[in-house]
Formats: sequence, C-alpha cells, structure tokens
Amino acid sequence: MKIHNFSAGPGILPHDVLRKAAESVIDFNNSGLSLLEISHRSADFEQVMQQARSLAKELLELGDDYEALFLQGGASLQFHMAPLNLLKNKAAYINTGNWASEAIAEARKVGEVNVIASSEDRKFTYIPTKYTIPIDADYLHITSNNTIFGTQWKEFPQAEIPLVCDMSSDIFSRKIPANQFSLIYAGAQKNMGPAGTTLVVFKKDILGKTGRNLPKMLDYELQYKKDSMFNTPPVFAVYASMLTMQWIKDNGGIEWIEALNKIKAKTFYNEVDSNPMFEGTVEKPFRSYMNGTFVLKNTAVEQEFERMLKEAGISGLKGHRSVGGYRCSMYNALPLESIKVLTNVMREFANKFA
Amino acid sequence: MKIHNFSAGPGILPHDVLRKAAESVIDFNNSGLSLLEISHRSADFEQVMQQARSLAKELLELGDDYEALFLQGGASLQFHMAPLNLLKNKAAYINTGNWASEAIAEARKVGEVNVIASSEDRKFTYIPTKYTIPIDADYLHITSNNTIFGTQWKEFPQAEIPLVCDMSSDIFSRKIPANQFSLIYAGAQKNMGPAGTTLVVFKKDILGKTGRNLPKMLDYELQYKKDSMFNTPPVFAVYASMLTMQWIKDNGGIEWIEALNKIKAKTFYNEVDSNPMFEGTVEKPFRSYMNGTFVLKNTAVEQEFERMLKEAGISGLKGHRSVGGYRCSMYNALPLESIKVLTNVMREFANKFA
Repeated sequence: MKIHNFSAGPGILPHDVLRKAAESVIDFNNSGLSLLEISHRSADFEQVMQQARSLAKELLELGDDYEALFLQGGASLQFHMAPLNLLKNKAAYINTGNWASEAIAEARKVGEVNVIASSEDRKFTYIPTKYTIPIDADYLHITSNNTIFGTQWKEFPQAEIPLVCDMSSDIFSRKIPANQFSLIYAGAQKNMGPAGTTLVVFKKDILGKTGRNLPKMLDYELQYKKDSMFNTPPVFAVYASMLTMQWIKDNGGIEWIEALNKIKAKTFYNEVDSNPMFEGTVEKPFRSYMNGTFVLKNTAVEQEFERMLKEAGISGLKGHRSVGGYRCSMYNALPLESIKVLTNVMREFANKFA
Repeated sequence: MKIHNFSAGPGILPHDVLRKAAESVIDFNNSGLSLLEISHRSADFEQVMQQARSLAKELLELGDDYEALFLQGGASLQFHMAPLNLLKNKAAYINTGNWASEAIAEARKVGEVNVIASSEDRKFTYIPTKYTIPIDADYLHITSNNTIFGTQWKEFPQAEIPLVCDMSSDIFSRKIPANQFSLIYAGAQKNMGPAGTTLVVFKKDILGKTGRNLPKMLDYELQYKKDSMFNTPPVFAVYASMLTMQWIKDNGGIEWIEALNKIKAKTFYNEVDSNPMFEGTVEKPFRSYMNGTFVLKNTAVEQEFERMLKEAGISGLKGHRSVGGYRCSMYNALPLESIKVLTNVMREFANKFA
C-alpha cells in the first residue's frame, strides 16, 4: 500500500532524492566507495558542499554579501549561536509559539532580551501585527512558521535593525525577500533534507561586533572562513540537502514550489472550512501553508476517523503531543495527490457521520 | 577494480552496514517510508536510538552508573562542551598533537587549564609517560589516539581525578578499562559510523558541579534526561552507527576486533620495519594500531610509489596535509586483505627500487 507521509518532521523527501541518496551510500559518483567512507576533503565532496552552499543562496536570490553554511545541531543550537554571535547589548524577540519561546529562553542565557510581542494570549493561534521594534536592539528575532501551532508569517516585519529568522519549517517553500534578513537558519529535516544539518545564511557585515572570544564551533565567522568545513561536516545530510535543493531548481525553482504549495494548502483548507466534522485551529490570515492544524468537532467518532486514515495509508497526521488534534504537514515534497487522498477521507467521513 | 580504502576519516565502514543503511534510505523496516522521512519520535526510531545507546555501553562494558548519548558537532564541539560541563576551578590536559591542542585551546576559553605534559618537543612522535596529575584539578583530559601523528596511548593514566578522553579515532577498536574514565567522547566517522554524530559516554556523578546555567544543547545532563533526543537527532548517522556496533557484536565483540586490529597493525609495521625504502615516524612503543604513519626515505621515487598504489586500488594513504608522508589508517572495517595488498605493493616497490 502506498503511504501518504504527513510527518511533521523529519518530513517527506522527494523520491528521486531518496533514490540518489541511497545509491551514494553504496557507490558515490562511480568511485567504488560509499559517500560515507570518503574524506570530506576529497574533491568530490568539496564540490557537494560548494554546490549546496551555492544552491541555498541561489534559491534565496542572495548575492555576495551573504554566506551560506551547513552546520550541525539543529535550530536548537542556533537558539544559542545566534545571540552568541550577535547579541551585544540587547535583542528583541517575538514569541509565536514553542520554538520561539525556546529561542527566547536560550538568548536570555546570553544577554538582555526584550519580548516585544507575543501571541500566547490566544494560545499562539495568530501572528502579532502590532509591535514596536526598538531601534537600539542588536536584532529582532522571529520564527517564520510555527510547526506546532500551524501559524505562519505572511508579511515580515519592516525592521531598521538586523532581522533574524528561524525558517526551519518553511525554508525554500515560498518566495521571500531574503535580503531583508541578516540571519536565516533552518534545521534541514522539514523542507531541505534529512535531520543532521542546519542551514545558516547570514549577511557578512553583521559579524564580529560582540567582542566575545567564541568557541570555534559556535563562531559563524570562523565557520565561513573555513568554507563550512572547520571540522568534518555531516556529509550525508549535506549531500541529501543538496539533492533536494537541486530538485527544486530543476523542477522550476521557488516559483514552482510556491505555486504547488499554495494549491495544496488551498485544497486542504477548503475541505476543513466546508466539512461539518472539522474546524481549523488558527486565525485564517495566519494559517500556515506548511502545517495545517485542525480538530475533529465530535471526538466521539475519533477512532472511526483514525481507522479510515489508516486504511487510506495516511501516516503522521497526529497533532503535536503538546496541543493534540491533527496536523496536516504539507512540506515541499508532499504531492498534491496525498492531500487529495486526505480530503477524500475527510469527505467520506463526513458523509458517514455528519 | 576493488578499492582499498585507507581514508583517515570519514573512514571505511563494513559492507553489510552500508547495504543496510542504503536500504533504510528507501524503505525502513518495511514501513514503506524512508528512515529519512519518519518522525524521530516514532517507535521504530526510538528503538534505534535506544539500541545504539545500549550497544555503546555494552561494547565498553559499562554499567548503570554511565550514560551514552549520540549528539552532534563532532569532537570539536566536545572540546567546548567537556569544559563547559565539568570545569569549575581548573583542568589538566596532556598535549599529544593537533586535536589535543585544539581541545586545550577551547578549554582555555572556559576556564583555567594546566598542560601537565606535552610531546611537542619531539614533534608529537611519542606519548608522555612522566607527568604529575594535580589532585585539585577537576579532570585530566587526554586524546587516546592521535590520527595525524600516528601515536596511541597503550596504558592510560592512573588518575585520582576524573579522566576525560577524546577517543574519536580508536573507539571500539580495542579492550579498554572504560570504567576508569568519567567522560569519553568520539566523533563517529572513523570506527563507528558516518560523519554527523558524536558518541558521548559519561559517569553520571560527574555532572552538575560547575554551577553554570548551560545552553540546553550543550548540557549533558539535559541531553541525558531527554534520552538523547532533546531535539531531532541525526537519525541516519545514529542508525548507521548502531548497525556498525551491532556488526562488531555479531562478529565476536571487542575481543574479536582487537585481535584483528593487532594482526593488521603487526602485518603493516613488520613491513615498514623490514622494508629498506620506508621508515615509521613514531617511537615504537607508541605506534597507533589505527593510523600507521610512515615516510619514503628516498622521495625521488615518490611518483613511482604513488603510481603503484593507484594501480593496486589503494586509496587515501596520503599523510595529513600538516605532516606529509603516508598514513595507513587501519580502522575496524578495513579488511586484512587491504593491508596485504598494501604491504605487497611496498615489497614490490622495494624489489624494483631498493
């Protein structure tokens, strides 16, 4: 049976990427050796790293004033690294959910933090639109897509100070004005590749201002001077990420994937809004195109719904353990077909039980 | 042509491990999904993580007073994390080469460091045997195997203070008194698996003594309380590491691999010592069983030697760029056959040019 993979992360990857990644584990570039057992200083791998870094910038339409790195530790390590590299006097944060809160907690261990807006008052079901950005803060930090709560920034803050963004769950999913950001980071495991690498993109002129003597591994400047290979990089995760970015590019780039993602999200939310059994949990203008959160109105028939999901091969639709309900994760590699299978099940379910 | 892979790292992995790892990228445990695109909170992956942590302790013969974690960032991040978690007043380090020096430099950013011995005076060609361990230091740090210079600790310091060891390049290669160590860490990419995960094994009673408010990602205690899954772990690297540890266990455990490694090292060093064209670069009692460093006495015939290596399918024998010469990396998965192919080439070369 075909499985429709709605996993919130690690999330679905393109079939072609998986096939090529698997091949590389046996024989990389017809070298007779596995990608896993060659030197990261070999010409073959250095080219992978270079290509990955260059594709990341190309998909974000960034120029030579930006650098892209592939590091380790996930967004969670960036919650520490971003303030360590940028926070001198104070930083401004906007709290839109779990991950934003984690970022704030970690930044507070480094320096002064101003939380200038929060959507916690309505359980993180919206994105704050009213806030004043302190012009004396070192940067403003936001979380572009909130995987757990299912909200997404549609228009980004117009900030006179450097804008820092955790884009882990919607990187490369839509056209964004990347050059309005000074630092973007993203764990790979939703839209970019397997778990184990983190994309870090920054404007070079923001570095070197804190006066801190940084640990080498946590120093953006050192990592970029070492071409993202200060120590052995997570070779396989970088390779699979490179393949995924190449897949986006080959199929039509960000314009293509954004259009597809919009169709998927529209198909899904139309069903949620028209189906009497379900309701969305998020204020409409802030609905995420990546993670559509919804609940069953009548939980008495929950088991029936879950049985039908299972029969249709739908996997990973459960909401995050902290909020419950359902979450339709529609990452780049999820085909429209899977959305249609889901909405058909939702409709059939309503026909039976509404 | 069969390639004989002497890469110093990422190093050779068992063929069976590569085959199973490649299969998992297409279909993991007959789930119809790739290992790369399932939740790390799924029962299937939680079992992988549990199994990996338990195998690590089993191969090291450690009990319930120890914990094993699979983190990210390589040994280079441990150079920072070890002092961050353990250094309160001062720490003692022994400098046996490049990586030890890096560890010292990073520890100095955290607190006071005493370098109690160094082999730098003779270009790191031996392991210091005379030193006094300060009993008031928080720990003593050593590097069990020096990949670049080709030396290895044969007997470990008898320390009354906690002993910390970077075992990146000889973990699981020989029987060691692991319970004499309070903290062992090892980047996976030599003897344990692909690049992208780091084994961290520690005695639980050493934690919580510095009073530091640690960043979550850098806190051993938090990582262990979260079962090594505080954030998304490097799923694929952990899985392939688990397979490699299982391969050691299934084939006879550490006793088996140690015996095999000794035969390989003996075969190699016997050739170096009896062959008139070559000489070892390290004092004999300290020769590494993992990385055998040697040079050609007459560099005028270097190109001839390299041509013969290439014809025999020998890959990755070049010494580290900082020291030159050759390096025969004999990690666990390197078959004796590859050593014999190399020593045959060395003998043929001597027959022609001696």
